[in-house]
Amino acid sequence: MTLAQPESVRVGVLGARGRMGLEVCKAVDAAPGLELVARIDAGDPLSSAAEAGARVLVDFTNPGVVMDNLRWAVGQGIHVVVGTSGFTQERLDEVRALLAESPGTGVVIAPNFGIGAVLMMQFAARAARYFDSVEIIEQHHPRKLDAPSGTAMHTARLIADARKAADCPPMPDATEEDFGGARGASVDGVHIHAVRAAGLVAHQEVLFGTAGETLTIRHDSLDRSSFMPGVILAVREVVKRPGLTLGLDDLLA
Amino acid sequence: MTLAQPESVRVGVLGARGRMGLEVCKAVDAAPGLELVARIDAGDPLSSAAEAGARVLVDFTNPGVVMDNLRWAVGQGIHVVVGTSGFTQERLDEVRALLAESPGTGVVIAPNFGIGAVLMMQFAARAARYFDSVEIIEQHHPRKLDAPSGTAMHTARLIADARKAADCPPMPDATEEDFGGARGASVDGVHIHAVRAAGLVAHQEVLFGTAGETLTIRHDSLDRSSFMPGVILAVREVVKRPGLTLGLDDLLA
Amino acid sequence: MTLAQPESVRVGVLGARGRMGLEVCKAVDAAPGLELVARIDAGDPLSSAAEAGARVLVDFTNPGVVMDNLRWAVGQGIHVVVGTSGFTQERLDEVRALLAESPGTGVVIAPNFGIGAVLMMQFAARAARYFDSVEIIEQHHPRKLDAPSGTAMHTARLIADARKAADCPPMPDATEEDFGGARGASVDGVHIHAVRAAGLVAHQEVLFGTAGETLTIRHDSLDRSSFMPGVILAVREVVKRPGLTLGLDDLLA
Amino acid sequence: MTLAQPESVRVGVLGARGRMGLEVCKAVDAAPGLELVARIDAGDPLSSAAEAGARVLVDFTNPGVVMDNLRWAVGQGIHVVVGTSGFTQERLDEVRALLAESPGTGVVIAPNFGIGAVLMMQFAARAARYFDSVEIIEQHHPRKLDAPSGTAMHTARLIADARKAADCPPMPDATEEDFGGARGASVDGVHIHAVRAAGLVAHQEVLFGTAGETLTIRHDSLDRSSFMPGVILAVREVVKRPGLTLGLDDLLA
Repeated sequence: MTLAQPESVRVGVLGARGRMGLEVCKAVDAAPGLELVARIDAGDPLSSAAEAGARVLVDFTNPGVVMDNLRWAVGQGIHVVVGTSGFTQERLDEVRALLAESPGTGVVIAPNFGIGAVLMMQFAARAARYFDSVEIIEQHHPRKLDAPSGTAMHTARLIADARKAADCPPMPDATEEDFGGARGASVDGVHIHAVRAAGLVAHQEVLFGTAGETLTIRHDSLDRSSFMPGVILAVREVVKRPGLTLGLDDLLA
Repeated sequence: MTLAQPESVRVGVLGARGRMGLEVCKAVDAAPGLELVARIDAGDPLSSAAEAGARVLVDFTNPGVVMDNLRWAVGQGIHVVVGTSGFTQERLDEVRALLAESPGTGVVIAPNFGIGAVLMMQFAARAARYFDSVEIIEQHHPRKLDAPSGTAMHTARLIADARKAADCPPMPDATEEDFGGARGASVDGVHIHAVRAAGLVAHQEVLFGTAGETLTIRHDSLDRSSFMPGVILAVREVVKRPGLTLGLDDLLA
Repeated sequence: MTLAQPESVRVGVLGARGRMGLEVCKAVDAAPGLELVARIDAGDPLSSAAEAGARVLVDFTNPGVVMDNLRWAVGQGIHVVVGTSGFTQERLDEVRALLAESPGTGVVIAPNFGIGAVLMMQFAARAARYFDSVEIIEQHHPRKLDAPSGTAMHTARLIADARKAADCPPMPDATEEDFGGARGASVDGVHIHAVRAAGLVAHQEVLFGTAGETLTIRHDSLDRSSFMPGVILAVREVVKRPGLTLGLDDLLA
Repeated sequence: MTLAQPESVRVGVLGARGRMGLEVCKAVDAAPGLELVARIDAGDPLSSAAEAGARVLVDFTNPGVVMDNLRWAVGQGIHVVVGTSGFTQERLDEVRALLAESPGTGVVIAPNFGIGAVLMMQFAARAARYFDSVEIIEQHHPRKLDAPSGTAMHTARLIADARKAADCPPMPDATEEDFGGARGASVDGVHIHAVRAAGLVAHQEVLFGTAGETLTIRHDSLDRSSFMPGVILAVREVVKRPGLTLGLDDLLA
């Protein structure tokens, strides 16, 4: 026998029939302490979330409707976890203004709910100052349109900022002849190599080196289920964090 | 033209003719802001360090003489960075007592000066609570007498402690038949696999996994030069940290 | 405009509604030079394959029906590629007898259609004699019941046989203390380490080492689509190879 | 008691005081069945090799003297294993002419005595036709002047030749935007990525992929001792192979 859990958090999902929304519904359903009370998609009234008693909404919709969803939810004092993209500075300012008028309510907006990816970037930023060299190798399926990946670019900038803050000297590199550009792209002085091959999904390796040792941080992502632990973490945390939280970094203890 | 650096730190090395001592002398010599002023080994008087004006001593001697070295140096108000092994609780207590009587003096004692290894352990401890599974694969040259390595055992304990503190459930493992012990050793519930092969030096991989993603932290150590950045960091930091500091963790910003 | 390909090979699939069968139908459909002419499953008459003019049948059914399928197909002079398991020596002898009476017909029976896995094993067997040491690290999802994997056991035996044939000395290993069995299983003298973690699918690494160098062969399998190139290869080859072919090794040019 | 081995092969080393020569002397000395009978360097007469009864000479000298050494040795009927560089087509033709007049004598000339590297290239050439995609990632210390490495270029050409011979279609690659050249160099259509970082020595990874699986062949070379097994193999084989042998490929059984 399992005891009733009187404090389980009631959760509604917006965009519940989308690819991410379906995964979120499954994940909320399976998470101890959370209860899925509303699956809402295009055509369904937002009010049904309130009627179902949702305390948190998870929004994986689209940039065209997400601001309306936020206006309504924050107005109702319902917390929101947002994975929808397209948040400009202007939009973030509006969310802050909405929250200022609803001081107990929390909103988490994250571009990436992969805890592994977030930790990889945190660790990379932290290690950056202690090594002479660092390069990034990202590997993706061959249908990807852009190189390097956004995550690799972001990681390179975090590393460059950390090295600059610690007054690190430039990395050693005696290359005189680089046939055909084999040394890859340099983003803020950090070299990035983009591999594209069938059979790959989404992978990134950050390689740090100093005389006699290397430290490698590697993240392999195989499917979108990997984002669910981050969504669940955000749902659990948003109820304790009034105001706007950007990214998962602050939620990781 | 380089300006004179009036504040360069004067450093003496104890055990200067040993394998590690020789590396330390080279590294101090090459480090900006540090000046090697004394190379001392068995038979040389400690007083020559004081005569040379050493402000910091680095001790890579042996358990039979290290306590005498510490008594003398702390008595003189000279800071000490210690890589010598054999520090029991009793010895640490005596060092604390010595330092209590010389309040401006600092001592750093570290079992491992490899910054990469220290960061690997920090990252592993931090990631531990966010993944369903974690296993350690350590790989060493075949002349190593013990398996698993001390670093692997220590890492496993850090991970187990972090998972316990976060109330993580046991890791999933449906293994019913384990022919010949292929699943390796379990240290506090964390599986460790010890690979021994010619051509290897000292390597460790910590593999974290959750549905759809894995995060891998890998450290490769090729020779003892890899310990020098940690020794130099400790020399720079010990002059700012009165009292006893154990390990490099606190020195890493 | 694409020219008609008058020599396209007409293919039928037995077990067409099973998980593997569905993949095979898709793969045959997409393969240049092959034409899918019959999808047959439990309840469908085998004769429909002959009526559709199938020149090759692919059998992913089950041990209870596969022999009947082979008796019928070989009797008709239809070539067969078999992925169904359960082939004892007795069954193989019967297949050889059937083929002796139908001399132009070919049958390929393979336990593993993953070309990558087959190549990994070939390369491992070939490299075995040239290195002092070799160990196997296999990594699978935590729902797997057995450790080590069948592929790892088979690889270890191939390596051991190759080393024996070349009179290799025992591998160096100074381990005196192996806490908790961290050195893993030894199969014919080859150490195997079995890692189980969420987020993994099916991976194997074979690590060879000699003083100063290592050679690593790694296979990562993410889903059953990875078996299709091997099935298609077997379909193309079986029409040129009368008699019984066991495994993909001989089909790889 | 060890029995005398009447058939041990007597070996002389030319360039015996150079970095490679010293390693070769040590390796020959330690190899069962070989006997080091002459260490010859600049200033020493070649005739001392004959006086010592050398049956095989190993030449790690320089392009300025290697042809004279070969003319003398082949004239004496002494087999030669050559690691010295600078062999143009013209020089190879002269060696063939010398050997034509001394039909029982063998010469092995190899640009790379690393068995691991040679096997990596063999395996890569063999796997090339079976995968949709292949890319090369080579990683070296930051003092290296050229990118990509000669080994990577050579591997790419072997792969391209094998794919062409098998009529492989172009590799899939949807990249539309390649910021800063992150996709690396393309050598005969095979992408090469060159990583340079402190702590690295000489490493190469060849990554093959098809839907659902990848196969990775990786070689790590840590120091020049890794070339010795290849030198010893060549010494043992040259006595059985009259005429000119180029590279180790044919010597690997």
